[in-house]
Amino acid sequence: MTTHFLRETDQRHYPYTIGPYHDPVLRVQPGDTVIVETLDAFAGKMVDERTMPSSILNYPFVNPQSGPIYVAGAEKGDALAVTMRSIKPRGPQPRGTTCLVPHFGGLTSTNTTVTLQEPLPEIVKKVHVTEEGIPWNERITLPYEPFIGTIGTSPELESINSLTPGNHGGNMDLPDVGPGSTLYLPVRAPGALLHLGDGHAVQGDGEVCGVAIEFATTTEMTLDLVKGWTLNWPRLETADFIMSIGSARPLEDAARIAYGDLVQWLVDSYGFHKWDAYMLLSQVGKVRLGNMVDPNYTMGASIAKRYL
Amino acid sequence: MTTHFLRETDQRHYPYTIGPYHDPVLRVQPGDTVIVETLDAFAGKMVDERTMPSSILNYPFVNPQSGPIYVAGAEKGDALAVTMRSIKPRGPQPRGTTCLVPHFGGLTSTNTTVTLQEPLPEIVKKVHVTEEGIPWNERITLPYEPFIGTIGTSPELESINSLTPGNHGGNMDLPDVGPGSTLYLPVRAPGALLHLGDGHAVQGDGEVCGVAIEFATTTEMTLDLVKGWTLNWPRLETADFIMSIGSARPLEDAARIAYGDLVQWLVDSYGFHKWDAYMLLSQVGKVRLGNMVDPNYTMGASIAKRYL
Amino acid sequence: MTTHFLRETDQRHYPYTIGPYHDPVLRVQPGDTVIVETLDAFAGKMVDERTMPSSILNYPFVNPQSGPIYVAGAEKGDALAVTMRSIKPRGPQPRGTTCLVPHFGGLTSTNTTVTLQEPLPEIVKKVHVTEEGIPWNERITLPYEPFIGTIGTSPELESINSLTPGNHGGNMDLPDVGPGSTLYLPVRAPGALLHLGDGHAVQGDGEVCGVAIEFATTTEMTLDLVKGWTLNWPRLETADFIMSIGSARPLEDAARIAYGDLVQWLVDSYGFHKWDAYMLLSQVGKVRLGNMVDPNYTMGASIAKRYL
Amino acid sequence: MTTHFLRETDQRHYPYTIGPYHDPVLRVQPGDTVIVETLDAFAGKMVDERTMPSSILNYPFVNPQSGPIYVAGAEKGDALAVTMRSIKPRGPQPRGTTCLVPHFGGLTSTNTTVTLQEPLPEIVKKVHVTEEGIPWNERITLPYEPFIGTIGTSPELESINSLTPGNHGGNMDLPDVGPGSTLYLPVRAPGALLHLGDGHAVQGDGEVCGVAIEFATTTEMTLDLVKGWTLNWPRLETADFIMSIGSARPLEDAARIAYGDLVQWLVDSYGFHKWDAYMLLSQVGKVRLGNMVDPNYTMGASIAKRYL
Repeated sequence: MTTHFLRETDQRHYPYTIGPYHDPVLRVQPGDTVIVETLDAFAGKMVDERTMPSSILNYPFVNPQSGPIYVAGAEKGDALAVTMRSIKPRGPQPRGTTCLVPHFGGLTSTNTTVTLQEPLPEIVKKVHVTEEGIPWNERITLPYEPFIGTIGTSPELESINSLTPGNHGGNMDLPDVGPGSTLYLPVRAPGALLHLGDGHAVQGDGEVCGVAIEFATTTEMTLDLVKGWTLNWPRLETADFIMSIGSARPLEDAARIAYGDLVQWLVDSYGFHKWDAYMLLSQVGKVRLGNMVDPNYTMGASIAKRYL
Repeated sequence: MTTHFLRETDQRHYPYTIGPYHDPVLRVQPGDTVIVETLDAFAGKMVDERTMPSSILNYPFVNPQSGPIYVAGAEKGDALAVTMRSIKPRGPQPRGTTCLVPHFGGLTSTNTTVTLQEPLPEIVKKVHVTEEGIPWNERITLPYEPFIGTIGTSPELESINSLTPGNHGGNMDLPDVGPGSTLYLPVRAPGALLHLGDGHAVQGDGEVCGVAIEFATTTEMTLDLVKGWTLNWPRLETADFIMSIGSARPLEDAARIAYGDLVQWLVDSYGFHKWDAYMLLSQVGKVRLGNMVDPNYTMGASIAKRYL
Repeated sequence: MTTHFLRETDQRHYPYTIGPYHDPVLRVQPGDTVIVETLDAFAGKMVDERTMPSSILNYPFVNPQSGPIYVAGAEKGDALAVTMRSIKPRGPQPRGTTCLVPHFGGLTSTNTTVTLQEPLPEIVKKVHVTEEGIPWNERITLPYEPFIGTIGTSPELESINSLTPGNHGGNMDLPDVGPGSTLYLPVRAPGALLHLGDGHAVQGDGEVCGVAIEFATTTEMTLDLVKGWTLNWPRLETADFIMSIGSARPLEDAARIAYGDLVQWLVDSYGFHKWDAYMLLSQVGKVRLGNMVDPNYTMGASIAKRYL
Repeated sequence: MTTHFLRETDQRHYPYTIGPYHDPVLRVQPGDTVIVETLDAFAGKMVDERTMPSSILNYPFVNPQSGPIYVAGAEKGDALAVTMRSIKPRGPQPRGTTCLVPHFGGLTSTNTTVTLQEPLPEIVKKVHVTEEGIPWNERITLPYEPFIGTIGTSPELESINSLTPGNHGGNMDLPDVGPGSTLYLPVRAPGALLHLGDGHAVQGDGEVCGVAIEFATTTEMTLDLVKGWTLNWPRLETADFIMSIGSARPLEDAARIAYGDLVQWLVDSYGFHKWDAYMLLSQVGKVRLGNMVDPNYTMGASIAKRYL
């Protein structure tokens, strides 16, 4: 069991998308721990409140990813288990950024939900992020509830941009991917090619304005393999619950994927009959809205372990 | 302050939809309390596990509603405040019902999401419902977390079937509408014409198989008016949070309605600037999926009162 | 075979929604012809280009309907066949109106696809409508291709607002409902209770800005019954094709309904095997987008009669 | 002006997805003509009606693409103009294939619109394709109306699987992409990297069962550049109309993209005022449904040239 340290300066962030065409920046063994310095989703360019997103963002060169990390022995058909150990803030204050980006967000027209209306104004808000809390204004302090917004493995053939979540994981923006959780990702390319970034110091369900408290992190995680566990979609486990995660449009399809996969998980791993699982989830299933702003929307469906 | 008792046998359940065309069964003053005996969504016809839904349900004659209740002084432009006091189970055991209804539910094709596949099997499960819990099988006991699945006021002109939620409330299937909460409904017809039914002893987020633990209830609630508070959509308040509720398809539109209305509420009633509210909700907003199975899907977006 | 004339002044346009609660204004026999003077969707109030929609429209009191017309012998389970004979323009020039209505249309946020953006500007354009054409500007003349935008029967229990299309017909805005076509509507209430209005002198696929060339019409149609032909959704027939019509959200559900019903029609009435019909429509099916702006979107799926 | 011939055996069909990571198989000059032998979407493996799709298809290794073709001088910000000259059938009879693929199609649940229902049966139908027509059965002959189902340029960074249409073109399945049309595709990678495949001998609107009459083609096309014409989405031109093409989910977003882009085109290239274009398209716009079965749905919105 080795601990690897992946410094910001050791990485390529090349070319901000991850597929089987990209060379790993780190090779690890199953069971190893990796401490990785992630950039924020704006690559640290949003330095103050006068720096407008439209002057900085050069789509699709956004949301830079750390990695890819090659896990020895990972093959198509395995699952990669990523246990989040800790997520610490990094960099000079004010190190947290939220903002309004033109034609991006849940309450604006976008480049696919097209309207002829004027975009919302661009606004940037910088905040101090510490593990004790995040002052929003004189009255309100946000809790520090960090998680990794974008984390995924390589698709088998594709190289997906880092804004789009899918069955490889990616930009799910799901607050449950925080310290203490284990995320299971499907392995589809040799070595899994894990990549991650887009740390959020705190985020509401749906990430409604499109931007959480974005920050650079030092993230510690343990990587392991579950050989021969073939996942269609990412899954997650905490001390309290198991969760299946779907990403799709429209949003009901994300919910269908998540609940459909959770039914299958209950059948395959916990001995439930399919119809019993379906009816039970109708009584005790829980849903978490990850994002309602990305090219695919993300939802997690979960069940408490006390029912398993 | 009077307490009224609306017995099952005093009601019409006529004709299972409520509009301005229907005569009230009860007239109350603002501040009065009403104790109402509601039927379950199957009008009590699902008496055992051999009674198939398709032999009992005669669509659109389903989901019978208690009421309408006329609240003196309620006029278009007011809000009706319904504070749920208690929800008790009623009727002989096993008094709880869940089931699979052909072409109804979140993981099946339906009469609008049409496919050429065979329907899922019909299955009925009867359970004993007490306030101490609901045994599911030898191993699992469900908690008793009751709420009213369908509750609404009359639309201004329409008479909506009782399966469809909308901006009048209706079949929202939102678990937050339980004891201790206050639901605010828009008044659009004289007297508000409140109606309710579809009690659920417990329900998961989304009511994924389409059916919760359906049961007949004795529901106590206090009705009050907020004069001149014109709501576009239902809102809800508990000791801990305020919530806006949207019902629409696709599901992202329910989320857009809910978050958009919550932004407006923060601006109108709590002194927030619009963009600040929008960005703050991106950090601390919470989302509850009511249903993903009805003719409109329902979502609630909320913010904790500690941020107000 | 009698011909009835339903003058504008003989009608109630009461209360602009049609359900089983509304008394008929005319009773006819199957086979009779009715000549009806319809109002335009703005009840004629948009008299010039300085009259802004927001000052005139009082939602939900819009889109006034002629009728309901009671067809003797029509019972639940029958189909009403409406053959459009002619649609003539009516009233003083400029008798045609199109406009931009705030938060209504296909390229704007709406009251369900909510955004925080400013609405589009209100603009009213009046045009001269004759059967020879509709001058748009010095260069462009639109063709006169009239049809009835809203036409439906009563739901069994509901009273639907006249903006919403559904399985009863209603505000489908489908350009195929013009002279020479026969529209089949499900009968769900005694006498069918046909209502119609919302004449369009011409309209593009989808009615993208939300408003066609709205005009008052004199519409001649023959009403007949097909006893015992139980329709789930409206259907349409011309000299060249048969079409099934779905109305739902999201738009793919309207397409699924339409194609699913057309498969069933081919099986029930034309001797096709289900899978053969499905695969054949994949090669020769045609789709017409009615509206992408109303509370439900409408699509027709058709097949040329030469394949039947 | 050179004519290039790209034989089936000269191609790589490697690795069935096209991005900036893939080496071109052919380099041409603007104005050159290319005659390319395309494979069918099943790479020719569906040789008879007993060969089941599930035994042949190895997702994501499907829908093989010819190319990429490098066009000298093509740079980000240009448009590639592809004029389809002719599409001829190729290979031994029966050279046409349609089929039902499990969990793929418009009237079945899929891997994103998940249900718990059984899949539809697998059925394969082989047909003889000639330029004179395609016999379906003793009674029905389908017309030969060939087009290219999948055609696109490389994204800037991504390598998209060949089943997904997007703003790069791709698997649009739009019947208008036939002989005589000119398709304009955005150039985002040096040389444009055009790829194509998925020839359809005929296809209905929406390709409802998911499969058209798939066939191998000899396709002749002329490639040209429009320097400095930066497209957000593909556009198409015929002798009669101009069309903008959107691909997204839900389907209404494809329609919003297409109509929104067409408004912009009318403003930029034809001198229309934005609101006038919007209102005019509401009267004379036409919509073509490409597919309702792929990971994104495709719609084209068009206007007749006589209005320009």
